[in-house]
Amino acid sequence: MNRHQLIEQIKEKRSYLCIGLDPDFNKIPKHLQPYSDAIFEFNKAIIDATKDYCVAYKINTAFYEAQGLKGWEAMEKTLSYIPATHFKIADAKRGDIGNTSSKYAKAFFETLQFDAVTVAPYMGEDSIRPFLEYKNKWTIVLSLTSNKGASDFELQKIGEEYLYEKVLRTVTQWGSPDNLMFVAGATQAVELSNIRKIIPNNFLLVPGVGFQGGSLKDVSVHGMNKDCGLLVNVSRVIIYASGDERFAEEAKIIAQQYQHEMSIYLPHP
Amino acid sequence: MNRHQLIEQIKEKRSYLCIGLDPDFNKIPKHLQPYSDAIFEFNKAIIDATKDYCVAYKINTAFYEAQGLKGWEAMEKTLSYIPATHFKIADAKRGDIGNTSSKYAKAFFETLQFDAVTVAPYMGEDSIRPFLEYKNKWTIVLSLTSNKGASDFELQKIGEEYLYEKVLRTVTQWGSPDNLMFVAGATQAVELSNIRKIIPNNFLLVPGVGFQGGSLKDVSVHGMNKDCGLLVNVSRVIIYASGDERFAEEAKIIAQQYQHEMSIYLPHP
Repeated sequence: MNRHQLIEQIKEKRSYLCIGLDPDFNKIPKHLQPYSDAIFEFNKAIIDATKDYCVAYKINTAFYEAQGLKGWEAMEKTLSYIPATHFKIADAKRGDIGNTSSKYAKAFFETLQFDAVTVAPYMGEDSIRPFLEYKNKWTIVLSLTSNKGASDFELQKIGEEYLYEKVLRTVTQWGSPDNLMFVAGATQAVELSNIRKIIPNNFLLVPGVGFQGGSLKDVSVHGMNKDCGLLVNVSRVIIYASGDERFAEEAKIIAQQYQHEMSIYLPHP
Repeated sequence: MNRHQLIEQIKEKRSYLCIGLDPDFNKIPKHLQPYSDAIFEFNKAIIDATKDYCVAYKINTAFYEAQGLKGWEAMEKTLSYIPATHFKIADAKRGDIGNTSSKYAKAFFETLQFDAVTVAPYMGEDSIRPFLEYKNKWTIVLSLTSNKGASDFELQKIGEEYLYEKVLRTVTQWGSPDNLMFVAGATQAVELSNIRKIIPNNFLLVPGVGFQGGSLKDVSVHGMNKDCGLLVNVSRVIIYASGDERFAEEAKIIAQQYQHEMSIYLPHP
């Protein structure tokens, strides 16, 4: 999906909601657990219930890898089930030397048909370039994350700027707003205005709203640009809205609430 | 495998060689390609031929993920085939917020029975802690890598020290030499003496010898400590020593050469 198509989806649905499909076998409703592919059944129901209110789904690879081969299979099936209208993100946080990153890019952009993959910047340019070489695919680079550990390195000063600012200024030269997004945590909403000064045009993938405590309003006020420029991810608050047979209906209600709030923050058409 | 057992293996074999199993389907010998599980057949032959000369095998997850489900299956089979005497490293470069890192730790330490996994430090403490919680398992954190892109961030100054030095000094407080190693690239051999001053006791996983041009002698002179403290990884130069039916025999010859050279650098028993 290209930038134009993504923006059109946001306008049409009046939503910039991304739903994180991070299914933990022990947290999915008990009545689904006996299914041979319980994780896929769970995701399928969540997708059916929420697809009208979100523009993207984010698959967190860790939750699938933890289940081994069976998990990888559930990931492939889930990916195939997501409608073509929706932006598909592999939240994989990969990154390695060039010839290895090429293999990761192949894994997520060819073998699996994701639109985007999250990448860690620590190893520098040749660890990120191979992802950027794919046409109409997106590389989403970590800048300032939503966790406590962000203070350990991301918020350390290199000269006059924080490491995450250095990452933004450096990495933005390797791609364009047509193939490069950045992760910016919602729990750091005060920093979003600053991030917007450094990269006015790139989309931001913003995790941390919901369970991690970030405010959708703060993120929208500080992070939005003229094209919206935001994909706000919510996972646990939606997918575990209820632990019983009503889980999909409850997920739908919460997703709809987020979409409604987003429609207020988006410019009027 | 614990530290004592690893050191015993090094002494017994007079080798600190780690062989990287990074099989690229297009580079494995043509006569193997028609096999339904060509990657596993290739790895099996390499392991059989080289196991007497190395103490560890490193599985680069990217090369398996690029093949999708079939690749993940080949990885599981390969891991099961590596003898119990050998240290098993998942070169996965994972790292995410705490609850996600817990899932990656489960994937590599429980679902797959690796001894160690490589982890990227960018997201800080809570992204690394979940890996360190496993008894007799190892977390190998990136510090200074062997690629050109190391200069983009790892070699940027935070106050008086490089980012990679900050990573070493900070992360070393979260674990001990019994559960924490660091990645230090062989192409940066001049920095290895400096790394040894900061972390005298931790093992270093050193990639970059062979194809990437790092010198085994330089690495050994600058990086060794009283327990050896090195696992030097070689991948392409060994596994692609020959592209024909003699590939395993040729791999054996090269592995033996490395082991012989290592036996010279190790202290006499």
